[in-house]
Amino acid sequence: MRATVIHAPHDIRVEEVPDPRVQEPTDVVVRVLRACICGSDLWAYRGESARQPGQRIGHEFLGVVEEAGSQVAGFAPGDLVVAPFVWSDGTCEYCAEGLHTSCPRGGFWGTVGSDGGQGEAVRVPFADGTLVKLPPAAVSDDRLLTGLLALSDVLGTGHHAAVGAGVRRGSTVAVVGDGAVGLCGVLAARRLGAERIIALGRHRARTDIAKTFGATDIVAARGEAAVEAVRELTGGQGAHAVIEAVGTEQSMRTAVGIARDGGAIGYVGVPHGSGTGLDLSVLFDRNIALRGGVAPVRAYIPELLPDVLDGTVDPSPVFDVTVGLDGVPEGYRAMDERTALKVLVKP
Amino acid sequence: MRATVIHAPHDIRVEEVPDPRVQEPTDVVVRVLRACICGSDLWAYRGESARQPGQRIGHEFLGVVEEAGSQVAGFAPGDLVVAPFVWSDGTCEYCAEGLHTSCPRGGFWGTVGSDGGQGEAVRVPFADGTLVKLPPAAVSDDRLLTGLLALSDVLGTGHHAAVGAGVRRGSTVAVVGDGAVGLCGVLAARRLGAERIIALGRHRARTDIAKTFGATDIVAARGEAAVEAVRELTGGQGAHAVIEAVGTEQSMRTAVGIARDGGAIGYVGVPHGSGTGLDLSVLFDRNIALRGGVAPVRAYIPELLPDVLDGTVDPSPVFDVTVGLDGVPEGYRAMDERTALKVLVKP
Repeated sequence: MRATVIHAPHDIRVEEVPDPRVQEPTDVVVRVLRACICGSDLWAYRGESARQPGQRIGHEFLGVVEEAGSQVAGFAPGDLVVAPFVWSDGTCEYCAEGLHTSCPRGGFWGTVGSDGGQGEAVRVPFADGTLVKLPPAAVSDDRLLTGLLALSDVLGTGHHAAVGAGVRRGSTVAVVGDGAVGLCGVLAARRLGAERIIALGRHRARTDIAKTFGATDIVAARGEAAVEAVRELTGGQGAHAVIEAVGTEQSMRTAVGIARDGGAIGYVGVPHGSGTGLDLSVLFDRNIALRGGVAPVRAYIPELLPDVLDGTVDPSPVFDVTVGLDGVPEGYRAMDERTALKVLVKP
Repeated sequence: MRATVIHAPHDIRVEEVPDPRVQEPTDVVVRVLRACICGSDLWAYRGESARQPGQRIGHEFLGVVEEAGSQVAGFAPGDLVVAPFVWSDGTCEYCAEGLHTSCPRGGFWGTVGSDGGQGEAVRVPFADGTLVKLPPAAVSDDRLLTGLLALSDVLGTGHHAAVGAGVRRGSTVAVVGDGAVGLCGVLAARRLGAERIIALGRHRARTDIAKTFGATDIVAARGEAAVEAVRELTGGQGAHAVIEAVGTEQSMRTAVGIARDGGAIGYVGVPHGSGTGLDLSVLFDRNIALRGGVAPVRAYIPELLPDVLDGTVDPSPVFDVTVGLDGVPEGYRAMDERTALKVLVKP
């Protein structure tokens, strides 16, 4: 089959690789219908996260089960399924608690020896613990299928940030990051009942999506100016719930600056940079909580799926460019240069 | 009157200072019956927190109201009262929410222009918002009076850490720090229903108190060895709730190391050191929350007071040395050299 391979920073290729097949009786093989490129893939693309030359890449996909191992109980060939961005056994203590990302037998797509999502097919370990079945009819609804793909990462990650930030009915929320995760954070905050959602962003196309997703205010500034603007919008106090969806020192500083005393920062941007941008004494003096991390999206899919299916939540607008498998390298370039928000891949 | 004054690092003196008097109609003057020295006073003593020469010091006290301003509704001369370690107006939005430490009109005892707790008397601003009345009979019960003094800081701070760490019935808790706050964290965790409480400490006198306060396990190690020991005690996973009551880079690293994935660190040690000791990417990968800060003990006194009064909670053993006002400088030396755990002052 053909799949995306990363050879070095900025060297992404689509190549012939071995066809995936069931290796363990708990595996299935999924033929990929939709995949995409994630902002976090760019860390590898830019060489900021190390990869071995020849590693696969891509961790978001949905598709159709092609083959199922003998011990797979919940899936059969022909099933339409979505995969979260980590696989997990579904049986351990962490999976039972909904923290599938800490499953000792879990792993990330694209790690050495595993398939990535940006390819024609994927071997899925622990299929019963990992995949979630989708209604077969969705396959003929292009927009819905694209929206469902967001369950593999960005929608669940935005939700995790909103939960971490403590968003509830009536909350004032501020969102740092106008990428697909930040925008899904806006969606998730609205879904959880936020009254006011302040989205920080300077790209009109993105802030327009933020508005359709439920943002009530847009702050087109960065750094200190953004902090001042959010404070002005919130009577000087800041937002009780802050979603941090970038992961740089600057974005974390901004998140702290716009948080209200006693509030919380839900952070889901993968932390990068030598320091953290965190001045713990500021968090301390103002009793600001920091809660988040790698989102256990497998736990959230059952909760979010009905809202995507009935159209209450439609994350599909975060995908603004569509490519075939051959277009994946160009898709990375476009996202790296921020000319694309999030690239959809139809292998 | 006589009060404790800090002139320079390691230069603590007891001197004649102006008698406090009611300056605002919302003030009272409290004659101090019990005060004490806090671990956080040592940061000033060691020169790690800046002080202006001649500033007062001490932020924990209880005593008797001597004079009350014309607008004070809740207190009259003769009332026995305890003061939290910050004053607060009791009427703002933050005070209403129980975050008295963020009251815009609040302040810390001993800041320039205010009295400190380690003296014969204190002018208390916003008395109605700040003080809490105690039963008059307590004045004749020496041990109870000492226990009640802990409501001014260490007991409420330990409680804040336990709440931040998410301690609930059945929790496994680990406590970093064998000072008075860490020990009160043990007390608070037991009070909140923790099933297992692992106290880290290498000083027998302190770990003995931890045991009487409810610690089920003692880990007499530091750093990596402590992390390994706690992991061994918890089936490799770590503690869901970690209380961090020191504030150094090393202690924070230990707290992260012994936290279970998906757990929380309740931190109340005033952060010190150029960095924070926090590797945010570890917190991120393991979904460990960080929640805490300067404890709004005023909010907790009404909840904790009944348990202290009826003896359910007795923090008095954290005070292991008693001095008069003249003995305060020697008390600082003893705490600095860790020959005293917490010094009680009877002016």
